[in-house]
Amino acid sequence: MFRTPFGTPLRTSPDRSTAGPPHRRTSAAHERSHAMPRTTHGTSATPAGPEAVRAAVRGGDRSPTSGKAPGYTQANLVSVPRDWAYDVLLFCQRNPKPCPVLDVTDPGATSTVLAPEADLRTDLPAYRVWEHGEPVDEPADVSGLWREDMVSFLIGCSFTFEWALGEAGVPLRHIEQGRNVAMYVTDRPCRPAGGMRGPMVVSMRPVPEDLVETAVRVTGRMPAVHGAPVHHGDPSVIGIADLDEPDFGDRTGLHPGDVPVFWACGVTPQAAVTASRPPFAITHAPGRMFVTDVRDEEYLVA
Amino acid sequence: MFRTPFGTPLRTSPDRSTAGPPHRRTSAAHERSHAMPRTTHGTSATPAGPEAVRAAVRGGDRSPTSGKAPGYTQANLVSVPRDWAYDVLLFCQRNPKPCPVLDVTDPGATSTVLAPEADLRTDLPAYRVWEHGEPVDEPADVSGLWREDMVSFLIGCSFTFEWALGEAGVPLRHIEQGRNVAMYVTDRPCRPAGGMRGPMVVSMRPVPEDLVETAVRVTGRMPAVHGAPVHHGDPSVIGIADLDEPDFGDRTGLHPGDVPVFWACGVTPQAAVTASRPPFAITHAPGRMFVTDVRDEEYLVA
Repeated sequence: MFRTPFGTPLRTSPDRSTAGPPHRRTSAAHERSHAMPRTTHGTSATPAGPEAVRAAVRGGDRSPTSGKAPGYTQANLVSVPRDWAYDVLLFCQRNPKPCPVLDVTDPGATSTVLAPEADLRTDLPAYRVWEHGEPVDEPADVSGLWREDMVSFLIGCSFTFEWALGEAGVPLRHIEQGRNVAMYVTDRPCRPAGGMRGPMVVSMRPVPEDLVETAVRVTGRMPAVHGAPVHHGDPSVIGIADLDEPDFGDRTGLHPGDVPVFWACGVTPQAAVTASRPPFAITHAPGRMFVTDVRDEEYLVA
Repeated sequence: MFRTPFGTPLRTSPDRSTAGPPHRRTSAAHERSHAMPRTTHGTSATPAGPEAVRAAVRGGDRSPTSGKAPGYTQANLVSVPRDWAYDVLLFCQRNPKPCPVLDVTDPGATSTVLAPEADLRTDLPAYRVWEHGEPVDEPADVSGLWREDMVSFLIGCSFTFEWALGEAGVPLRHIEQGRNVAMYVTDRPCRPAGGMRGPMVVSMRPVPEDLVETAVRVTGRMPAVHGAPVHHGDPSVIGIADLDEPDFGDRTGLHPGDVPVFWACGVTPQAAVTASRPPFAITHAPGRMFVTDVRDEEYLVA
């Protein structure tokens, strides 16, 4: 599942690989030391802002957006025809942890309040086009495919909570190990909505046992980007047979004393598209998110 | 506006009058001393739970639900035909502070996951029936009006955050004064969604200046029940000409040193029904909420 028609394996993370650096200068050095071992994004004195990142994309940059425009929220994209929009919106409402909606456009709209100057058809580095639940293309521009009845959902992404975890001193093992986060299809069905159904997908981050409570507390304050974990400890409780065999992304090694912690994951809507087979849909391509003008801290509660 | 066809003035609070006592025993005495001066609900050793409250309603009790089933979340009800459901859901998604959705039913459903054994057609003490934006009836039972295509929205209510305010030591002046909370139509339009539009309605609670930050912090942790205030201080900033003339509910007196604090209010969806004139809608009647089986603390974030 999740293979392109061109044979590209799609088991890499669609929406998370390295965390962006924090925007708060006070702890930037601390954060960078453990959360940014590989990427060079954001380590220059003046990292590009969201407009500059999107301009580069329009100029042909198809690289992943992780670490770009640090401090600005990135979003998953799911666009469906209007006659599927209610089911998608209700599916998200009923499953807010995996599918936290940041914005929904009017039919045919090409922009979102999250970045009014941006064009949703051109400003993501790559898209995935779906027909009846199957990915059929990965273009860099979907202007020619955009329909008058397309409704776009912008859905929260874990980049935002990863900076908060890093800032709170929680190590991000997948980043230390230079890998995409590990994701798993669980045995927990999402609550269906009309024609939309599918299993909950989770991401796993190993957390030192004495920091699990911190991780829960920090991400619990960010319900717009998946919120508190859905589970920690024994993976079999949520139907995961083998931590070494993630369904998407890369295996992440646990250090001695680490506990696997599972968060609801933004891949869930794409899994629902696969399971529910709407006749047509456009999503972002793995790792190629929509960079918004909204600061991460806007999604902090309390 | 907001008058029944029978001449009953509808300027009383539809969803708030006295806060329920807290469920945490440690501070019950403290809370009761300042937050429960008038009501006798919940002061018995074993206050009725949600099932008992709903059974009494089915038995003919039409009294307001404030203070009943303390510790259990009460909800605003808005039911519309399926062809209006997308606009209502999107309106709520776009205006989450006044319209925090706790559940949306399938078309024709008579129950909700918030209280699976309850019947939405009979278990509220009174309903309001709307035609083209006008209230036309206030029956105690809407079984005969329920349509196969009715979609019901259960929307968060400030009872839940009032217990949290009281527990944090923030006085609730309207309750001290034995009044319904004061509510005002602001000059802030909600973000429209299809055919749904309307102004944001706010509730006002006077808060001693040195407790404003506490009030912000406490309610900010409860985004499912309106969250942090939308404004405090000068009422004219949000289009309120005179604090002594609330649009709904009762005037609340400020003590010396009190600051008016404004929260987005669950009356907003009814104001949107009035402004948007869907052909048919059913809501709860003022003060007669749906008592759910969900504990208030379920809606705490962090």
